[in-house]
Amino acid sequence: MGKARSVEETLLIVGSIAFDSVETPRGSVDMALGGSASYASLAASYLARPQVVAIVGEDFGNEHLTRFEKNGVDTEGIERVRGKTFHWRGRYRDNFKERDTIETCLNVFEGFDPVLPEKYQQTCCVFLGNIDPTLQSAVLDQVSRSEIVAMDTMNFWINTQLKALKQVLRRVDILFINDEEAFQLSGAESVLLAAEEILALGPRYVVIKRGEYGSLLFGPEYRLFVPVVLLPRVVDPTGAGDAFAGGFMGYLSKVKALDRTSMAGALMRGTVMASFAVEAFSIDGLAELEEPAIDHRLKGLENLIDFR
Amino acid sequence: MGKARSVEETLLIVGSIAFDSVETPRGSVDMALGGSASYASLAASYLARPQVVAIVGEDFGNEHLTRFEKNGVDTEGIERVRGKTFHWRGRYRDNFKERDTIETCLNVFEGFDPVLPEKYQQTCCVFLGNIDPTLQSAVLDQVSRSEIVAMDTMNFWINTQLKALKQVLRRVDILFINDEEAFQLSGAESVLLAAEEILALGPRYVVIKRGEYGSLLFGPEYRLFVPVVLLPRVVDPTGAGDAFAGGFMGYLSKVKALDRTSMAGALMRGTVMASFAVEAFSIDGLAELEEPAIDHRLKGLENLIDFR
Repeated sequence: MGKARSVEETLLIVGSIAFDSVETPRGSVDMALGGSASYASLAASYLARPQVVAIVGEDFGNEHLTRFEKNGVDTEGIERVRGKTFHWRGRYRDNFKERDTIETCLNVFEGFDPVLPEKYQQTCCVFLGNIDPTLQSAVLDQVSRSEIVAMDTMNFWINTQLKALKQVLRRVDILFINDEEAFQLSGAESVLLAAEEILALGPRYVVIKRGEYGSLLFGPEYRLFVPVVLLPRVVDPTGAGDAFAGGFMGYLSKVKALDRTSMAGALMRGTVMASFAVEAFSIDGLAELEEPAIDHRLKGLENLIDFR
Repeated sequence: MGKARSVEETLLIVGSIAFDSVETPRGSVDMALGGSASYASLAASYLARPQVVAIVGEDFGNEHLTRFEKNGVDTEGIERVRGKTFHWRGRYRDNFKERDTIETCLNVFEGFDPVLPEKYQQTCCVFLGNIDPTLQSAVLDQVSRSEIVAMDTMNFWINTQLKALKQVLRRVDILFINDEEAFQLSGAESVLLAAEEILALGPRYVVIKRGEYGSLLFGPEYRLFVPVVLLPRVVDPTGAGDAFAGGFMGYLSKVKALDRTSMAGALMRGTVMASFAVEAFSIDGLAELEEPAIDHRLKGLENLIDFR
């Protein structure tokens, strides 16, 4: 943490920074640090040097920037403007089976027009968090060098920006998507056919996230499955997918390859970071991890699928 | 298939034989061979010599017995009595997310009082299909020698026969249960805690089946996870759990051990047999399999979780 790393280990992350108010069967939290860029960058910070491009309002206190910096996250690309930070209020019900959005205030996020600091334009890897696909493309236009590009998306963009989404899909190596969105984007009836349809849209690899049931990776030469870390209890699933992507891309920023073994390692890291994220509200499960705790979970996950 | 096997490879299976009328998004079938003992015995027949104890009515044609015998299933324990065979009518909706039972006619199954032929009383392994736990105990009373005993159950018995269920749970090595039933039986909020609660009730191992999301095995010394075989389409999920148990116990009847490697092999075999079962209505996906087709799926499943 906090060590200087070469460009070889940088990971450009573009996404949201938000204040979340969340209620779950285990408790609640109000106006706590959240957003895709927060979860992804903290999860990635144990493996790479994340460079965050995001927008916040005047209400975004320096203590949050300090939090990022303590974890070695480069915050130069976090733009602070007049107005309020993006705010999301939601509730999880029925032992986490249902999620209701109670309020979404885009605030300054509505005017988000990501501009990369010059030093971010050459980077090892890129993770485009779940934002307007037009903006995702605009970010890629500013990247002059990158080994691996990955992106996330969501049902809202599939419904409202399909053309722009398909354009950016042709420019990425990896798409992260959850299973419902994969069915929606592909129109397919099984996860296997959905993956094949999505790969035909352009990305070289697709990672289909299935929440508590694990993740599947499909590519031209191999397929991989990883289950989740078995936890006695979940506190707040918010940000799990972004923590997964952060851990995944952090690992790829180190190994810089897309072969089977590298991708298997990335799936494991992503899964383990997501497991820490869901054990606490906000980014609390991700912020101060020790290497032995991470290794212990990696080992447990490996054992679960060690069939030799 | 059809080869004589020693007592060392016998697998006693007690359960239902039924005529099922099923409608799914892929079509329908009327009065087709079904029931837990049918699926489990055909799935097991590629590895062991299943001995079936079940009850059928006068309407149960010899062609069905011939079908079993062609697969090497010992049918001496199938009792034919006056009356009609157990009949179930159901419908799968919403891309298999919902299942409605339209009609259940127990018929002769209501008077089922399993009596083991003498030659079944010494067997390698036992699989007690999903029947009244009182009957499951009565079957075990008749078994004088067996290496490994496994059982299945369902929500109906958890609700109506909890005491008898707990009694038989103390007598088995392995419980097969789906995740909803595991939560119901344990009252736990996570699959990890549910498994721990269930193991405290007596079985040495519990296999939690999660449908299209794979299966988890919990025991005193290790835990294993296996995903499902990725299929382009499912035709009829009826019997998948019984085919899984049949393949699983067929494998254990050969290896006669409960160590990690043996259980991993059993999980793989069970998963592969379930994948064949769901690709056709009734037992059609299970009845005439060739060894290379089975091996091909085993290999594909292995690759999916080969993280080396």
